[in-house]
Amino acid sequence: MRSYTVVGAGAIGLLYGSRLAAAGHPVRWVVRSGADEMRAAGLEVRSVDGDLRIEAAAMDVFDDPSDAPASDVVVVALKTTANEHLADLVGPAVADGATVAVFQNGLGVEARVRHAMPQAGAVVGAMCFVCAHRRSAGIVDHLDYGAVTAGVHGESDPRAAVALVDDLIGTGTEATIVADLAVARWRKLVWNVPFNGLSVILGATTDALLGAPATRGLVADLMDEVIGAANAAGHAVAVDFRDEMLATTDAMAPYAPSMKLDHEGGRPMEIEAIYDAPLDAALRAGAPMPKVAAVRDQLRFLDRRHVVADRHG
Amino acid sequence: MRSYTVVGAGAIGLLYGSRLAAAGHPVRWVVRSGADEMRAAGLEVRSVDGDLRIEAAAMDVFDDPSDAPASDVVVVALKTTANEHLADLVGPAVADGATVAVFQNGLGVEARVRHAMPQAGAVVGAMCFVCAHRRSAGIVDHLDYGAVTAGVHGESDPRAAVALVDDLIGTGTEATIVADLAVARWRKLVWNVPFNGLSVILGATTDALLGAPATRGLVADLMDEVIGAANAAGHAVAVDFRDEMLATTDAMAPYAPSMKLDHEGGRPMEIEAIYDAPLDAALRAGAPMPKVAAVRDQLRFLDRRHVVADRHG
Repeated sequence: MRSYTVVGAGAIGLLYGSRLAAAGHPVRWVVRSGADEMRAAGLEVRSVDGDLRIEAAAMDVFDDPSDAPASDVVVVALKTTANEHLADLVGPAVADGATVAVFQNGLGVEARVRHAMPQAGAVVGAMCFVCAHRRSAGIVDHLDYGAVTAGVHGESDPRAAVALVDDLIGTGTEATIVADLAVARWRKLVWNVPFNGLSVILGATTDALLGAPATRGLVADLMDEVIGAANAAGHAVAVDFRDEMLATTDAMAPYAPSMKLDHEGGRPMEIEAIYDAPLDAALRAGAPMPKVAAVRDQLRFLDRRHVVADRHG
Repeated sequence: MRSYTVVGAGAIGLLYGSRLAAAGHPVRWVVRSGADEMRAAGLEVRSVDGDLRIEAAAMDVFDDPSDAPASDVVVVALKTTANEHLADLVGPAVADGATVAVFQNGLGVEARVRHAMPQAGAVVGAMCFVCAHRRSAGIVDHLDYGAVTAGVHGESDPRAAVALVDDLIGTGTEATIVADLAVARWRKLVWNVPFNGLSVILGATTDALLGAPATRGLVADLMDEVIGAANAAGHAVAVDFRDEMLATTDAMAPYAPSMKLDHEGGRPMEIEAIYDAPLDAALRAGAPMPKVAAVRDQLRFLDRRHVVADRHG
């Protein structure tokens, strides 16, 4: 069984890390906060697919990435807002030739990992289609879905993605290989761009946004802009993928996207990875996304207020 | 002295109506709410230009427009959200040949008045560049500015606008004639479109919106879209009017636009006149305003919530 080091103990890291551990993989955890709680109480996944517990005795938790033993795969499950510090937060846990699997949202995240960890053997991008929230240290609520798609970045050996997907399938996760990681990243943005931003700005869950004609139209427009930019940038996304995403979201239980929870929790939002990087790529491709840009500017304003509030107490 | 009937007792109607009354014009008031308070206590303008009082004994207040005596000029100082009912709310106060002066925001408001009151002799559009809020029935806070520009609508006799401007100048108001009412309406939108909408959506006053680089940029983008649409529709607005409006707003005391107060007060917002009508005109002119449309959709969502909240108590 291949060994894993999971860096970051948010909902994504806890959910898939627990599944890998339950399937018998050695799993090491590198966490910045909540380490003591996880050592004391283990992990708990309250899941629509059946609950899962990892006992405290089975937990291998490290505060410092340089203390973690070398694993075959290092999972980056940090928020992208920490990506400036990837080299410090993750790098020491990555042995020469190890696979780094990037379980993050947004665009350009694998390139940042590749740059920060030149010793990695392969960089794999992983996208999770899942509704899950961290309830507290070591406890995650898994509400819906759970599929993962993965593909290699740049010149990495495609077998690194196949091995990850095989391991995930072994945990009972629906996992598939994507031939073109960039296309998959843009497809994920088609959902993330409208719902993350509007849920924060309008204080609303997915059902409310789709239930009102005005915001349903705006969600569709934002999706169209993302699809247009993806195609202009050479990453083919079908125009009717929009309708598929709307229908998928209609079928979901009312959902508060991660950005909404981050903002309400006083944490910074993933604006750079989910908005700035796609907007830059769209502009370079000659397909600006004006409505996406308006949403980004509004988020920056709200994020700035968070920073100001922090500073003044 | 020409006589006036002011319909609507919000900040605009109270401020300019009081000035006309103080200057000696017979002024009749048609108000839907607060009539008893105004009859009992008169009017009070707490103004940067010096306070003003109209004693109760001098008040001529009517609940029903058909009870008001014929005046030379009828001032429409209702919110545009009442414009569906113009014929009923204002029409009976308009004698054959009277001038109707439309003190409202947005686009297309004079055409609605013209259609609802065919007996009017002339329809004049008036734009107020003023920071003022109604504090309570009959009491208005006048915080800053106060200039009025006015021009005639369609085939109306231009002398009707000249007479209105003369009367306003007689009250000490800075008032000027505009040769092209449509241009003036679009120029006013250059300010109203960004600041009204964003102040509601982001819960912020003008100083906060201009103080953050992201929203300052978004305000400028929204202004550019409005200016582009105005020019495409044949109404010449100089490109650098944007910078003038930004500088003017920088110089203002922090201000909560009327739409923000309306929304916070649980009243409907003037989305149709300030957003829908300009968006329609822009689309017809082949110059769509995508960022303005995104703001409009967000406002519709927030407005809808207001309606829903009303229905359910």
